[in-house]
Amino acid sequence: MARNPTCRDLQNRLTGERVKRETSMPRLYVALTHYPVVNKRGDTIASSVTNLDLHDISRAARTFGAKRFYVVTPLVDQKILVEKIISHWTNGVGGVYNPARRSALELIKIKDSIADAAEEIEGIEKVYPKTVVTCARSYSSSISFKELRNILQLGRPHLLVFGTAWGLAEPYISQADYILEPISGQTAYNHLSVRSAAGIILDRLLGTRK
Amino acid sequence: MARNPTCRDLQNRLTGERVKRETSMPRLYVALTHYPVVNKRGDTIASSVTNLDLHDISRAARTFGAKRFYVVTPLVDQKILVEKIISHWTNGVGGVYNPARRSALELIKIKDSIADAAEEIEGIEKVYPKTVVTCARSYSSSISFKELRNILQLGRPHLLVFGTAWGLAEPYISQADYILEPISGQTAYNHLSVRSAAGIILDRLLGTRK
Repeated sequence: MARNPTCRDLQNRLTGERVKRETSMPRLYVALTHYPVVNKRGDTIASSVTNLDLHDISRAARTFGAKRFYVVTPLVDQKILVEKIISHWTNGVGGVYNPARRSALELIKIKDSIADAAEEIEGIEKVYPKTVVTCARSYSSSISFKELRNILQLGRPHLLVFGTAWGLAEPYISQADYILEPISGQTAYNHLSVRSAAGIILDRLLGTRK
Repeated sequence: MARNPTCRDLQNRLTGERVKRETSMPRLYVALTHYPVVNKRGDTIASSVTNLDLHDISRAARTFGAKRFYVVTPLVDQKILVEKIISHWTNGVGGVYNPARRSALELIKIKDSIADAAEEIEGIEKVYPKTVVTCARSYSSSISFKELRNILQLGRPHLLVFGTAWGLAEPYISQADYILEPISGQTAYNHLSVRSAAGIILDRLLGTRK
């Protein structure tokens, strides 16, 4: 006959549920980097911010449950531009007209560098995040979507970094904890926009399906 | 002892290989519709073309092996605008500067209606395509990504229809052969841009992964 649960049983059950809940909700942060990235010739540059990158990636981050979306640029005029766009949709008339857009753009934080974003995450999570860079090229050390999906389920915070222009500058790729494999389609063509790539990658890592 | 293959054996083998190849390459066409769609209040409208929709969805279509990308609008000024954008990247300086962009935008064909796109596909494939509409809402008759992926593997041509603005007008949804289930993330938020949704859906239907 089953005995009545003791306080300890209930506590263990609650702890178990908390652990289960924590491990089943990945703590993934996203960064879109405008410096240091490379141009078509391979020179390191600071790229301009694209308005629709902010909208599309914040909406995808909100859909798939990413915690924050860092827009990384050290350029003062670009930071002012991003603040203006966010403000229109969160405090301005845009927020009243389209509340769904507001709740996505509220995820955006502007940072000077990837390191600054990682430090903010450390402040929130009390542990420094692992960094994952995305790249259209494959590396011998690349990890698969399935591997990263499993790693994220373990609950440690991760910062997923996207590069604009022709991609992140090489030193920043090799410094990361993980390099994610490129997206593969039915063809050898691998020129997705960063907006499309971010949506697809978040879906592969966090999406649910029947 | 194995006998030498006869002509008939070789012919059967070739036929088998051809059937296998045909059934393993889905014949999927994509359409982005600007009319008839609904606005925020539910009125049926014709929406304006967004430049980056053309770029992002053609690049995703090219990556995942869709056959053509139909931009559907009956408005003359909008058709001229789309032609101008395509021409810049296929015949103009854009095509020289960025050949990868050219090979994506070459997939675009402008049509007045979804029916016109379907008729062109019938001319190419010698069979009228099945139509699949995408929608952020779930219907009792919605089919899953897995089901549609399996159907596509059978080789019959399909036209996958995306709506702009607040989505396709209701009569066009119920007239379709299939309604695809909405994209599900970790949250109840379902406000992806049509650019992101198209990339994610093409990946779920045609993408390959380890």
